[in-house]
Amino acid sequence: MASWLQIPKNSPFSLANIPFGIISPAKVSSRVAAIAIGDYALNLSVFASSGGFAQLPAIQQHLGVFNQPTLNAFAALGRPVHRQVREYIQNVFRADTPFPQVLKDNAALQKDALLPLSEVTNHVPMQIGDYTDFYAGLNHAYNVGVLFRGPDNALQPNYTHLPVAYHSRASSVVASGTPIRRPNGQILANPAATPKVPTFAPCKKLDIELELAAFVSTPNDLGNPVPIDQAEDHIFGVVLMNDWSARDIQAWEYIPLGPFNAKNFATTITPWVVLLDALEPFRASGLEPGNRETLLPYLREKKAQNAYNIPLEVEVTNEGGKPTVISHSNATNLLYSFPQMLAHHTITGCNMNPGDLLGSGTISGKESKTEGSFLEQTNGKNPIKLADGSERMFLEDGDTVILRGMAGTEGNYVGFGDCVGKILPAIKIDS
Amino acid sequence: MASWLQIPKNSPFSLANIPFGIISPAKVSSRVAAIAIGDYALNLSVFASSGGFAQLPAIQQHLGVFNQPTLNAFAALGRPVHRQVREYIQNVFRADTPFPQVLKDNAALQKDALLPLSEVTNHVPMQIGDYTDFYAGLNHAYNVGVLFRGPDNALQPNYTHLPVAYHSRASSVVASGTPIRRPNGQILANPAATPKVPTFAPCKKLDIELELAAFVSTPNDLGNPVPIDQAEDHIFGVVLMNDWSARDIQAWEYIPLGPFNAKNFATTITPWVVLLDALEPFRASGLEPGNRETLLPYLREKKAQNAYNIPLEVEVTNEGGKPTVISHSNATNLLYSFPQMLAHHTITGCNMNPGDLLGSGTISGKESKTEGSFLEQTNGKNPIKLADGSERMFLEDGDTVILRGMAGTEGNYVGFGDCVGKILPAIKIDS
Repeated sequence: MASWLQIPKNSPFSLANIPFGIISPAKVSSRVAAIAIGDYALNLSVFASSGGFAQLPAIQQHLGVFNQPTLNAFAALGRPVHRQVREYIQNVFRADTPFPQVLKDNAALQKDALLPLSEVTNHVPMQIGDYTDFYAGLNHAYNVGVLFRGPDNALQPNYTHLPVAYHSRASSVVASGTPIRRPNGQILANPAATPKVPTFAPCKKLDIELELAAFVSTPNDLGNPVPIDQAEDHIFGVVLMNDWSARDIQAWEYIPLGPFNAKNFATTITPWVVLLDALEPFRASGLEPGNRETLLPYLREKKAQNAYNIPLEVEVTNEGGKPTVISHSNATNLLYSFPQMLAHHTITGCNMNPGDLLGSGTISGKESKTEGSFLEQTNGKNPIKLADGSERMFLEDGDTVILRGMAGTEGNYVGFGDCVGKILPAIKIDS
Repeated sequence: MASWLQIPKNSPFSLANIPFGIISPAKVSSRVAAIAIGDYALNLSVFASSGGFAQLPAIQQHLGVFNQPTLNAFAALGRPVHRQVREYIQNVFRADTPFPQVLKDNAALQKDALLPLSEVTNHVPMQIGDYTDFYAGLNHAYNVGVLFRGPDNALQPNYTHLPVAYHSRASSVVASGTPIRRPNGQILANPAATPKVPTFAPCKKLDIELELAAFVSTPNDLGNPVPIDQAEDHIFGVVLMNDWSARDIQAWEYIPLGPFNAKNFATTITPWVVLLDALEPFRASGLEPGNRETLLPYLREKKAQNAYNIPLEVEVTNEGGKPTVISHSNATNLLYSFPQMLAHHTITGCNMNPGDLLGSGTISGKESKTEGSFLEQTNGKNPIKLADGSERMFLEDGDTVILRGMAGTEGNYVGFGDCVGKILPAIKIDS
């Protein structure tokens, strides 16, 4: 698909993508809905109020959803509406657009609504009611299991029967670019000593987790599970996520109820929500088919291909240094799909709301340099070498981490944009 | 304190209390703020718009907070304002009120604003952004630890150094009276068998957890911990909570990331928020003083008395049967206070918002019949006998559970009202 708009061939936001987000235009603090295309954001509030959607009758009565500070109301309209809006916008931007008067030949609206991405501020695109983090990256679970319990007991018996998950912290989900403050906390400096007495200190084992995350669109009522065959239509779209983790705080606190302070200080997401329809051409086999017979029926999908072929990478740049890509992975490294996660989450009757966020778990490959966390790649022994020769077991102050993910081929990429966070030093606490 | 309003001597809502909530008046679906007093709710929206607060200048510019569907905006005004409003309302209701014209001698406003509790609908009083459940009931943690690991390793080494917690599910927090649907889920019917293969079934070990829970009022920004000495002023008030738990689902799913589906189907709270100021006269020693020197300084309180003396009870009634009080406990059975929980929660820089909910953990005593859960009281062996002779290891369909908690003495009780839930049968799932 060619566009009349000049779109760089390496842009994650080709005409094949059309992801949705929330922006503040330059010099304006109010938030509105937008899509990203090439190096531009299309302000959907201005576009809608200027008659941009005049050729799409189905959305006429819902135009107010684009003039809100979150995408929750748009998401709640449901997948058929998202699909129509995305396809309409693709048609508006096609070189052979059937509606040239809408934007292609409308210089005034281009000036008002088509804003350089470099001049807009991105925000967390949805009001997140609850954020749940799954653990569906089997290789990650195995790698971490080996570190903690050895290869024979690396995976718990439940792992292949259900998508393991924990509730996580919604309030501290931040948009790409937000600096990450190194957390303070309780750390057991010497785990072998008796009695075990923690010290109070800045986290010394600050790590990343390379994840995808899905936003819920369609809600379900308390007491009413979402059947597996309907689950995909309850998902709005996907973002890239860095689930920052304080490994030393986690090791001391997490038994018996799971990670808490080790995760609650920040989680970074890309601000553009890529619709499942945009990812559909990249459907691929995950680590096992989604319809394997060892699964209980409520988790068994009709489609065997329940993952997406999305190459992922992790780049680290130290202060004043050069970028180093330390890891290449792929979103096929998941044992469970987002529809399976949603079906499991709701099988008890748990109610989901538009804007709820489901993290995939850390996406690691099996080979060296495909790990989605420092913990796995260094194995506590082998430091990561950066371009300027400096070494890392974990993140240091001033380091910048960028996650990237793009499916497709040059000129037609469907990607998320950079998921960026720079580490700031811990604040001083009197203790 | 005597009131001109007739208040039953055994009411949890004496003039010494004045808890805040959200109601819908009879035949009206809109939600407004209210306080409970005796057998009445005072509709604060009507009260405010009728000049009821005319004698309280400090609140004049904020009267809109009472005409909202949650208490979040009122809570965000901060403790000094809550204190003034509560004391003002107490003065309005005193027998010797200095403002008789406001309500005592104003039959028209009484008719409009003073509504029988039996005729109003209660709601979850706040928009809950995140709900965190702590584990500060030491006797509960010990009892459960003995069941899982034996008496020598019952408590983890971290337990006496930090308030253990996990993120829980905000969307399924419901107001007292909401029926509780028994969840379905994965259960390991025979834990001793190899390989371990779960079955899909309705939960057979449906349990309660007797807890208090605190709502946050004043927010803190991401990256800025709340110091322990300021933490109390960030708390709006307290409710009684039943953290329903599916023990069989929990046992299979919870390793290594903690409870998930075992908790996400429902949590019941009382709808009236009792301010900390109302509980202040009942301050008492918890299981250890809040300023003990083995705590890291960020958790050490100035006040040694960091609990409240609130007698608690659990009542169970089977379908067609008579009520049986199966347990008596007290809120002094906690090792950590809500300010300590908040200080720990935010020490990483985690941001809290008005409406965030902090559960205390299950409040069990040390003696028989003081346990806050069936799991502890039956110990998997000794069934609980109900009044009609029937026995319970866990809850059965049709059972109604009521938690109660009241501090103080007859005529001056400060209580929460009933925390009620009735168990409905699981829905049928094809499997």
